[in-house]
Amino acid sequence: MRPVAVAGIGKTAFGAFADKDLRSLAVEAGRACLDDAGLTPSAVDAFYLGNFAGPSFVGQNHLAPYIAAELGLAGVPATRFEAACASAGAAFAHAWSAVASGMHEAALVIGVEKMTSQTTAKVAEILAAAGDVQGEGKAGATFPALFAMIARRHMYQYGTTREHMAAVAVKNHGNGALNPQAHMRKVITMEQALAGKPVSDPLTVYDCSLVSDGAAAVLLMAAPHGKVQVLACSQTSDHLALERKADITSLPAVRLAAERAYKMAGLGPNDIDLAEVHDCFTIAEIIAMEELGFCAKGEGGPYIASGATALHGPKPVNTSGGLKSKGHPVGATGVAQICDLVLQMRGQAGARQISRSRIGLAQNLGGSGATCVVTILGAV
Amino acid sequence: MRPVAVAGIGKTAFGAFADKDLRSLAVEAGRACLDDAGLTPSAVDAFYLGNFAGPSFVGQNHLAPYIAAELGLAGVPATRFEAACASAGAAFAHAWSAVASGMHEAALVIGVEKMTSQTTAKVAEILAAAGDVQGEGKAGATFPALFAMIARRHMYQYGTTREHMAAVAVKNHGNGALNPQAHMRKVITMEQALAGKPVSDPLTVYDCSLVSDGAAAVLLMAAPHGKVQVLACSQTSDHLALERKADITSLPAVRLAAERAYKMAGLGPNDIDLAEVHDCFTIAEIIAMEELGFCAKGEGGPYIASGATALHGPKPVNTSGGLKSKGHPVGATGVAQICDLVLQMRGQAGARQISRSRIGLAQNLGGSGATCVVTILGAV
Repeated sequence: MRPVAVAGIGKTAFGAFADKDLRSLAVEAGRACLDDAGLTPSAVDAFYLGNFAGPSFVGQNHLAPYIAAELGLAGVPATRFEAACASAGAAFAHAWSAVASGMHEAALVIGVEKMTSQTTAKVAEILAAAGDVQGEGKAGATFPALFAMIARRHMYQYGTTREHMAAVAVKNHGNGALNPQAHMRKVITMEQALAGKPVSDPLTVYDCSLVSDGAAAVLLMAAPHGKVQVLACSQTSDHLALERKADITSLPAVRLAAERAYKMAGLGPNDIDLAEVHDCFTIAEIIAMEELGFCAKGEGGPYIASGATALHGPKPVNTSGGLKSKGHPVGATGVAQICDLVLQMRGQAGARQISRSRIGLAQNLGGSGATCVVTILGAV
Repeated sequence: MRPVAVAGIGKTAFGAFADKDLRSLAVEAGRACLDDAGLTPSAVDAFYLGNFAGPSFVGQNHLAPYIAAELGLAGVPATRFEAACASAGAAFAHAWSAVASGMHEAALVIGVEKMTSQTTAKVAEILAAAGDVQGEGKAGATFPALFAMIARRHMYQYGTTREHMAAVAVKNHGNGALNPQAHMRKVITMEQALAGKPVSDPLTVYDCSLVSDGAAAVLLMAAPHGKVQVLACSQTSDHLALERKADITSLPAVRLAAERAYKMAGLGPNDIDLAEVHDCFTIAEIIAMEELGFCAKGEGGPYIASGATALHGPKPVNTSGGLKSKGHPVGATGVAQICDLVLQMRGQAGARQISRSRIGLAQNLGGSGATCVVTILGAV
């Protein structure tokens, strides 16, 4: 295996874009990425697409060659990877593996989702198909309901509070307000977060990530082809249904992916300077802190509330604003996390730039924990 | 890159199974494959799922961990690959690459589709999403219509006849009648084939493959772990829309994939003992003969009608019965082709066993040619 570099990054803004279709979003991100790398499409020899539910959201399937050909890549292997909200993470993991092994020289990875053309009810139904439809789904559990159960149990077992969850929302909204590409650039106070409109008790609107359109792209090539290298990447899996888990406050796929990634990189949690984690709900960021080893099990709430993960704290988490404020076009998120880490690691993060950003970690989650991809990047 | 062997194969019968859901089909094939390899799930360190449209056909997404966990594989990377009717081919290609590179030791690849729970009209609509929905789709072109246009143009340019296409159907139905796992075990005559009920002129029901439920699995491991090795595997892409092609009678993605696979294997068309090709429509098998280099451009019809590709002819094609008779659960087909080649190469093909089966080629097509995967296997 040879070292792999992030040779280019590109993103669209995240938001609700009535005038942009799925393919135009993906192409916009892909072109921005090639421009960033200073390369033309002829340099690319493989295409990896992360997309969760294009067929359900916009009625188009077979999306990888559909997008690749529009980018001028007709001929190259072009494949769509689906792993729920970790679809882009899975595409990235396979692209990294192919470049690391020498199978490909330059792999373009794009993640994309176009969600806002559907009604809220239809979006909830499409997202619910990432859970066990015959079990949880038939019982009426949408994703807010599943994470509400997880939150309630975490509160019961560990004393986590509404204030702890609100602290995640306040932090991420504050960070996102500094990100010109974020979907919702709105600073919120603790009082506002605590007074949010209920979605699925104990979760309010301020605990839930956004329904967004958007795309993100990275170009992976053998090092040296960029300041940032992929030090490790690990993808893991678990049961879809919460009822199959011994403890619903745990995310074993996250813990396993992190352990493997740390081992591959020869690093530990203390070596991570910054992280982009999968805050699809505020409780998910709290649990991610625990499973990534940033704090002990059950202490994710107090850890975040202490300011440890604040923008200029000792271990900044979701400096982009996270899924909560930056937005969550589900099939794009895993690649967007990589883009946001690279911006910080290159010193290009503008108003949200942090001072120490040599080692970054991305954690991308699918469903209520059945897929996880953990990636560790290092600046050289 | 190290040599990779097909360490195990497993298939369900193909057909219409009201009592089997998508997951139970996939699990049945996966267990049969592990049994064939003489291994338990603990030996598997990565899971690759080919599936085109589970979310549309059965309402369940995030299918890879859903199936993997049921097989006892929770923890391993589990990813769904979508490339229209070449979804299983794409999953196979990526699994082969991962084992060849040493990234994984034992990759289980399953292809599955459950189609017959939907109405024929709904099936046509779901399949149409593998084409350019905003263009061809809006114009009302289903897949039979697209391939009818291709057939009509091939007839005009090369003098291909209805009899040439019927010869494909007669051959494949004859072969499939000998395959106990085939969907439609029905010998047909040339007269019957020519008198078929019209679907999209000039195509009749006897020119169209079947709508089926089914699953197929292969286990890939570093050689030596089986009698059959993967000599080459190549995936390519093209535009989705026919209107973007210079000549709709050509399948450039097939030609390119074949050229690359032959080069990788150090072989040519004359070295191939038998092939499983993607006869979604009879005209597709005719064009495949040309693009794979088995005959010259435009001569696919006469080549097949001559008996060259008959069961005991010089180059048997679709000894399994092909998509036409064996059935075409779209997300399973690419892996099923590998299973069928391996049966012949091991001498386990029963009543349809051919005498010379040392080198086999599989060609899996997505949509009207926007994805192609060509694999060459060799018996050692």
